[in-house]
Amino acid sequence: MNKPIKAVVIPAPGEALELQEFQLPELEDGGVLLKLFYADVCGTDVHLRYGKLAGVPYPLIPGHIAVGQIEKIHGTVKDVNRKPFREGDMVTFLDVHGTCQECWYCTVAKATTRCPDRKVYGITYGVKDGLCGGWAEKMVLKPGTRLVRLPQNVSPLQFATCGCGLPTAFHAVELAQIRLTDTVLIQGCGPVGLMATALAKLSGAGLVINTGAPELRLHAAQKMGAGVTIDITTINESQRQSKILELTGGRGVDIAIECTGNPKAVTEGMNLIRDNGRYVIVGQYTDHGEVEINPHLQINKKHLEIRGCWGIDFSHFYRAVKTLELFNETFSLDKMSPQIYSLADASCALDDIEQLKVIKAVLKIN
Amino acid sequence: MNKPIKAVVIPAPGEALELQEFQLPELEDGGVLLKLFYADVCGTDVHLRYGKLAGVPYPLIPGHIAVGQIEKIHGTVKDVNRKPFREGDMVTFLDVHGTCQECWYCTVAKATTRCPDRKVYGITYGVKDGLCGGWAEKMVLKPGTRLVRLPQNVSPLQFATCGCGLPTAFHAVELAQIRLTDTVLIQGCGPVGLMATALAKLSGAGLVINTGAPELRLHAAQKMGAGVTIDITTINESQRQSKILELTGGRGVDIAIECTGNPKAVTEGMNLIRDNGRYVIVGQYTDHGEVEINPHLQINKKHLEIRGCWGIDFSHFYRAVKTLELFNETFSLDKMSPQIYSLADASCALDDIEQLKVIKAVLKIN
Amino acid sequence: MNKPIKAVVIPAPGEALELQEFQLPELEDGGVLLKLFYADVCGTDVHLRYGKLAGVPYPLIPGHIAVGQIEKIHGTVKDVNRKPFREGDMVTFLDVHGTCQECWYCTVAKATTRCPDRKVYGITYGVKDGLCGGWAEKMVLKPGTRLVRLPQNVSPLQFATCGCGLPTAFHAVELAQIRLTDTVLIQGCGPVGLMATALAKLSGAGLVINTGAPELRLHAAQKMGAGVTIDITTINESQRQSKILELTGGRGVDIAIECTGNPKAVTEGMNLIRDNGRYVIVGQYTDHGEVEINPHLQINKKHLEIRGCWGIDFSHFYRAVKTLELFNETFSLDKMSPQIYSLADASCALDDIEQLKVIKAVLKIN
Amino acid sequence: MNKPIKAVVIPAPGEALELQEFQLPELEDGGVLLKLFYADVCGTDVHLRYGKLAGVPYPLIPGHIAVGQIEKIHGTVKDVNRKPFREGDMVTFLDVHGTCQECWYCTVAKATTRCPDRKVYGITYGVKDGLCGGWAEKMVLKPGTRLVRLPQNVSPLQFATCGCGLPTAFHAVELAQIRLTDTVLIQGCGPVGLMATALAKLSGAGLVINTGAPELRLHAAQKMGAGVTIDITTINESQRQSKILELTGGRGVDIAIECTGNPKAVTEGMNLIRDNGRYVIVGQYTDHGEVEINPHLQINKKHLEIRGCWGIDFSHFYRAVKTLELFNETFSLDKMSPQIYSLADASCALDDIEQLKVIKAVLKIN
Repeated sequence: MNKPIKAVVIPAPGEALELQEFQLPELEDGGVLLKLFYADVCGTDVHLRYGKLAGVPYPLIPGHIAVGQIEKIHGTVKDVNRKPFREGDMVTFLDVHGTCQECWYCTVAKATTRCPDRKVYGITYGVKDGLCGGWAEKMVLKPGTRLVRLPQNVSPLQFATCGCGLPTAFHAVELAQIRLTDTVLIQGCGPVGLMATALAKLSGAGLVINTGAPELRLHAAQKMGAGVTIDITTINESQRQSKILELTGGRGVDIAIECTGNPKAVTEGMNLIRDNGRYVIVGQYTDHGEVEINPHLQINKKHLEIRGCWGIDFSHFYRAVKTLELFNETFSLDKMSPQIYSLADASCALDDIEQLKVIKAVLKIN
Repeated sequence: MNKPIKAVVIPAPGEALELQEFQLPELEDGGVLLKLFYADVCGTDVHLRYGKLAGVPYPLIPGHIAVGQIEKIHGTVKDVNRKPFREGDMVTFLDVHGTCQECWYCTVAKATTRCPDRKVYGITYGVKDGLCGGWAEKMVLKPGTRLVRLPQNVSPLQFATCGCGLPTAFHAVELAQIRLTDTVLIQGCGPVGLMATALAKLSGAGLVINTGAPELRLHAAQKMGAGVTIDITTINESQRQSKILELTGGRGVDIAIECTGNPKAVTEGMNLIRDNGRYVIVGQYTDHGEVEINPHLQINKKHLEIRGCWGIDFSHFYRAVKTLELFNETFSLDKMSPQIYSLADASCALDDIEQLKVIKAVLKIN
Repeated sequence: MNKPIKAVVIPAPGEALELQEFQLPELEDGGVLLKLFYADVCGTDVHLRYGKLAGVPYPLIPGHIAVGQIEKIHGTVKDVNRKPFREGDMVTFLDVHGTCQECWYCTVAKATTRCPDRKVYGITYGVKDGLCGGWAEKMVLKPGTRLVRLPQNVSPLQFATCGCGLPTAFHAVELAQIRLTDTVLIQGCGPVGLMATALAKLSGAGLVINTGAPELRLHAAQKMGAGVTIDITTINESQRQSKILELTGGRGVDIAIECTGNPKAVTEGMNLIRDNGRYVIVGQYTDHGEVEINPHLQINKKHLEIRGCWGIDFSHFYRAVKTLELFNETFSLDKMSPQIYSLADASCALDDIEQLKVIKAVLKIN
Repeated sequence: MNKPIKAVVIPAPGEALELQEFQLPELEDGGVLLKLFYADVCGTDVHLRYGKLAGVPYPLIPGHIAVGQIEKIHGTVKDVNRKPFREGDMVTFLDVHGTCQECWYCTVAKATTRCPDRKVYGITYGVKDGLCGGWAEKMVLKPGTRLVRLPQNVSPLQFATCGCGLPTAFHAVELAQIRLTDTVLIQGCGPVGLMATALAKLSGAGLVINTGAPELRLHAAQKMGAGVTIDITTINESQRQSKILELTGGRGVDIAIECTGNPKAVTEGMNLIRDNGRYVIVGQYTDHGEVEINPHLQINKKHLEIRGCWGIDFSHFYRAVKTLELFNETFSLDKMSPQIYSLADASCALDDIEQLKVIKAVLKIN
């Protein structure tokens, strides 16, 4: 136990990642020590490397989604069914925690993502706060963190491959309120878009259309359930519109879910949805600037309903894990083809994601 | 009966209004001839004068909301309770009609406002189609038009004064889903904004804040129930935001309803709503161009829900009349101070509206 | 064309079915003559034979769901996309028609199933009204009937086999608002229960539990997607409850859909749903008497939401056909194993349904 | 501080109330000591006297709703806006607390009222747990209890008079989703029924009909906003139905809210609601046995939506206090005419409530 613990550290925005060593801290009451097996590498981690998120206390250990075995529990920690966790349990956890259940957003608006006390492992903690990121051999979960046992039919690698894209997409697809037979447009085929594609199909979409790039990811989108994919690098916006109108009897899609991060996608999405349709915007996780919209044509006359979706709460995370258990085949590894990296190769993983070379990157840790 | 019927005509976009004479046509089976008493003059009529609406067949008789007495019925026409209308009944009618109940929008999407067969008196008919506008001594309602008896405690003048703003605002406030005690921002204090102010209060808003101009209309907004009014000609956008944050514990309003017609109001509205709030956009009835928004800050991170609202169906119209009957005091004439014009002075009424000289203009006909 | 048309007639409640001959009537403008291929035989037809439905004008030709080829159209009849139907088109139709679009229920409550003018082929028409039932060689559709083209991948036999159970279950499952991963209990494995089983799975249910009998139908339920089936003839109510609590972590199912017609199922269903769950009651189509419930334990303390579901509108019918097109494999004939009868054997079909000998009966006509 | 504290105690079910003396305990960190001014006396307290609630640990100090001044705070306790409470603040508190935010009901179903850890002051605590009821000179609030400052325009007496009926009715009216102009039936004119009457009007009901007894309370219902009251002791069920059909154009009310506690009211309520209406059942707080319903006629064919409502969460309590602040006149003391008792007269207050002698009873304490 006294062996130092290796963890990847981003020293400061723009600086090279380092593999540093840490000592194991004392656990607080209610705290849990995890021996990690796999961690997710996602677009947010690329943003973190460049300092694009506000309020991040560098140096930090990235990694908000990870999976591992409980090595030690201080006191008693229970699952949602009141069954205590035991050492040796294979678990994951909701990265978001610390929401106060006391403030106006937690208690009156019931929008815990807006709680000012909200913390996120791998993002809002610095090295000074302890082993609070998943890109490490071990990780310390603070009291109050919500853990979930990994279902028996879900491997740690499969879970990490779905990554934070799965619960994020779960939240978005839930807000989309898909009706059986609806045609759904997923804009973007990064991890969130791919997961949204699968979840939209599982929720009853008749046809899922996926727009994005590169070819590699569009191919994955097909495996995840997209009936039609459109490569935005070879088919221009006007052609995309023609194609989608053609596929929808001239009306546009019933529902669109934006998973791109590009503000321009928002105005395009508005044009591709039918009158009286619904638009869930989940991809604009960070600030990429403004876009022009025409409120008369794109919202008012269209009777469009738009729902902004940011972050998740425990219900999304819990149901996302449940989805993985119940519809395991849908998320089989051969569809997602995860690229596996070691902790030492984390910066390489970030490079590959940034350059869209891989569909999905995960870190294999232990 | 053979006396010619006077009606106001817009010969072509930009041309001066004329008072022309028409012969009474034969009624179709199911048709109704109304002797009109009052007609609404609204912002849409100003747009019509300048040719700002697409697909309008000039020359036309304006006037989409009017009230009068049934002079003749061809066949049997019934109210929603199956009670036949009789000659002499004081009635009004839903301007929107002709929706086919057969197309995809009418039957599957249940969004009748998008029916391609949809017709609107005073807007989509030309003089060639007959006496199809309310700025006339008499008006011919086509078979299938939905009539409503004027409640006994509602005078024709009161109904015309509320005008099309009342059912339009009814639709918007219904989409707003106000919860008891919510703080609601109404952007704009034209007829729709004033009606939305009253309806928001009746629906349980704890505080209604009204932003607009000029002073005359803001004063009317106070009478309609606004607890706070903000004059946009003297208080700039940054000051407005400070004021509204101050009034809402630093969070912003729970709900905003845009009733301005100015695209810039849309981006301001997004900033004034609290996280996880709701925004109904009803004022962008015609195309006034683009506006810049930041999807990350104004929709995504904010968890904002936006609902475009355009046009009405019969349920909104029927309930709006019912509202006027049940909450008559709220809409008393002294609050709205309608300016009354004759048919011959219709162009003067349009001028006064355009220059915001009056709160509300109505035509007194018979 | 002058050859007499054979049709099955129920002369009066309780009397033997007869195969009678009719002359072809003139078509009204907007009327359509169908040469029928297959017709559905359903539980309602058994009720009709015994006179258990109120307001039925005997003698009548049963058959509310049928499929056939257009032999003649008088005037122009269009589909929801405004494409005219042509002679030779293979079509089906919504049995419900004549809803007035004028009464309070049609226009204000938007609950067209409560329209007093509502008519249903095969149920509310007598022989005196013409060829208005589907158990006939040909059928006359009145003006205003909503037709739908049979999708190319759907055979007439497959459509008739799904029968009225499909759109009825569609309505019920829509009201159920299933969330991805929900455990759903379907009570009853008659045609509505079997279709609800399939639709619940397609809508994202994690596990569908089906209670009913006999074994034959429970076996079909498994093919339609039920993960667990419980035979109510061998497993008593208390055992059923234990089993379902065991399957749901002691909480009960998230959602139940009653498809039995037996009032006792309602009180059992309330007990099997988890606190804060939802219950859709669709099977109580006719009056089978009272049942005792405990409002405190079964509704109030349970926070139960109950939704009565009766009849369908065109959106349910249209989307049900779309479902059959988009998820064709789910409804393959080998799963439903329809028993096929001739018109002359219709009474035998009714006997077999009544005695639960077959999963589904259809009439092959031409 | 060392003076003994007087509190009313129910020694055991059916036994006479006693005024006992207690010593002040040590406060836990996050605990608050209140000097109470007024406490609510409600029907639940009558049930407690007779031992009709399960799992109550006698002897206990009743009183779940009370208002008082903070005498001492151990540590820091903040309001929803993060403003710390201070000694001397006039406050009230949500009686429900201890919900775990960890179990399936708290986190996945978001139905905190079903949390197994849920505690309620004055009900689930015994004398052994400390000063945990409001019928006492002082009361100790445990860490995690949610406090709310009494608004300046709300007197302690006014708050106690509205009592737990206000937030309970708030929850019920919220579930009722009243649309502007709806006709709403409130069954029962006890404290919950009276509050529901006022809240239904504030939420946009066009007409509130109140059924109940005795005359004294029906008179109060009129003051709270009921347009029609029906005395169930003089007007029988059939006459009530006739009267309500007459008031609603033969259709029945749009929405009913059951606030009686009598199971028979449930079946009557189902008959008085229009087809496709909504029924909120909130009065069946304790078990008064079974009632017969006809699922076909009363739920299925009627398309009825029924929502069980039990208990409250903080959002209901917070908004209820806000309602009292914003619509203070609606709840003025002269309308409710509270009967004021001393702690020593608490059993007399219970008698008077049980015999329906008073509209509302409150205890004046300090």
